[in-house]
Amino acid sequence: MSLDQPAIAIIGSGAVGGYYGSRLAQAGHDLHFLLRSDYDAVRTNGWTIHSCDGDFSLTPDQFHAYNDPTLMPKADLVLVTLKATANAQLGSLIRPLLKDDTLILTLQNGLGNEEQLADLYGQDRIIGGLAFVCINRGQPGHIHHTDHGLIAIGEYQGPPTDRVRRLAGMFNSSRIRCRILDNLRHGRWEKLLWNIPFNGLGAAMDTTTDRLLASPAGIELVRDIMKEVLAVAHADGVDLDPKLIEQKIDHTRTMQAYRTSMQIDRQTGRPMELDAILGQPLRVASAHHVPMPLVQMIARQLQALDNSQNYPD
Amino acid sequence: MSLDQPAIAIIGSGAVGGYYGSRLAQAGHDLHFLLRSDYDAVRTNGWTIHSCDGDFSLTPDQFHAYNDPTLMPKADLVLVTLKATANAQLGSLIRPLLKDDTLILTLQNGLGNEEQLADLYGQDRIIGGLAFVCINRGQPGHIHHTDHGLIAIGEYQGPPTDRVRRLAGMFNSSRIRCRILDNLRHGRWEKLLWNIPFNGLGAAMDTTTDRLLASPAGIELVRDIMKEVLAVAHADGVDLDPKLIEQKIDHTRTMQAYRTSMQIDRQTGRPMELDAILGQPLRVASAHHVPMPLVQMIARQLQALDNSQNYPD
Repeated sequence: MSLDQPAIAIIGSGAVGGYYGSRLAQAGHDLHFLLRSDYDAVRTNGWTIHSCDGDFSLTPDQFHAYNDPTLMPKADLVLVTLKATANAQLGSLIRPLLKDDTLILTLQNGLGNEEQLADLYGQDRIIGGLAFVCINRGQPGHIHHTDHGLIAIGEYQGPPTDRVRRLAGMFNSSRIRCRILDNLRHGRWEKLLWNIPFNGLGAAMDTTTDRLLASPAGIELVRDIMKEVLAVAHADGVDLDPKLIEQKIDHTRTMQAYRTSMQIDRQTGRPMELDAILGQPLRVASAHHVPMPLVQMIARQLQALDNSQNYPD
Repeated sequence: MSLDQPAIAIIGSGAVGGYYGSRLAQAGHDLHFLLRSDYDAVRTNGWTIHSCDGDFSLTPDQFHAYNDPTLMPKADLVLVTLKATANAQLGSLIRPLLKDDTLILTLQNGLGNEEQLADLYGQDRIIGGLAFVCINRGQPGHIHHTDHGLIAIGEYQGPPTDRVRRLAGMFNSSRIRCRILDNLRHGRWEKLLWNIPFNGLGAAMDTTTDRLLASPAGIELVRDIMKEVLAVAHADGVDLDPKLIEQKIDHTRTMQAYRTSMQIDRQTGRPMELDAILGQPLRVASAHHVPMPLVQMIARQLQALDNSQNYPD
């Protein structure tokens, strides 16, 4: 990746892509957003970011907007912020942007994203990341960033490298707090420890985090689901500290009535990231012959509710 | 029970009690309604029944209304139509009405109601029944009867007796279609075969019957839950025909977007009949060492959502 003035492509310019891309452009980087529904609004009016860290906006001359990846220039870094439900398009959307040394960083949810990118483009250029951010789209071109914002990145395979440290430096100098993960898989499972119970139950039951934690029965259910995740992570070579269970539950209490992304997707009739957040972990569990009966039941409920087949990605 | 002009007490004059009691009063029987929230409205204005079988109303001189069971006369027949969530009150509400030969007929949902009544008043006077009726309360004193209406009654213990046949005759001559059950337990399990998946998932997922049956995943989930019910019924001595599974699913399709009573209770913040419809069957399963993992998970979700502790019965 070129060090000075890298060309950065954002694939999937929803809330996450729009927010992090705008932060990078605000810091003077060369940003190329691939947009779909917000294309006209963003090309005409730029980005408006309502942020808990201070509002800001970008005028259209501060970045480039596209609605077709074949019209985009080759990139040094491709930041993948597509919803994982749209991963069938990873081939057609990213291939036109690649040079021999283009890096691909995915900030998507769940398991399996790096694997799918590596299958398409080789594992050497893949970097994985997690976004810890509360963010929503507003009217076209508007993003509401309500809390947090940290990203954590690591090599898809192996320990952190120089290129990961350079990327982290770029983010941190662009007002995006970025940590380096010694072990990406560990980070993914730790995030799943929260996402599986809260996104899963939140969407299956259409209920917010506070209500799930309002009764001993709800807390025990969340805890038992987390125990299933811990066991499967262990079988997958990741030892999560069991103390994380109570820590995550305690932290979630501070979030009050939080609607998870999957609950919002259910309520708005959009596809849920069911496969990335529950399906892939269940396949890992099955491969290791580790039972996950509670997660399996939630996945079945979500499959029954899933709208993916009715909505284009 | 006296044959001519029996005094009939309705304990729990919600939609079911109000409807069936009004039908009996309309036919000239001597009806005594115990009311709570609708007491003033019903005592002043009588009952108004909006029925798919023809609207009708009762003036206050056609029945007796009470808000205290100790003010009611002794009854020949006590019809129990309380929500099962209020069963802790079976003792205080019914005892003042009993003579030596008073019969008690429960039309409540789920398992365990006859057992609780038998524990309190002896098994000899207990008759069990099932109501197959789509019915809701409207404004105070108004009931909306939208579909069906059949009741099925049988002895709590043993085959049908003369008194059951007399009761069935009384209902049938009062425009209440009534069948006699050779085996009450069989009838209860057959009703649970529908109630457990559709009330359970409907409330846990806040979803209507049509949506549960809109995808292969949803149908398979309903089917697997029904298989669990079939296995536990078998262990409990009731052999349900496995063909009932597809019959009940097919019949449910004809009901379109049906909100089960438990889903409505969830949406309106009222206590759900969780123990009668899921808890008791789970205890039977446990006593017979028959696994019910899917039903168990639904029960845990409903416990997490349950409002019983916050609302008086």
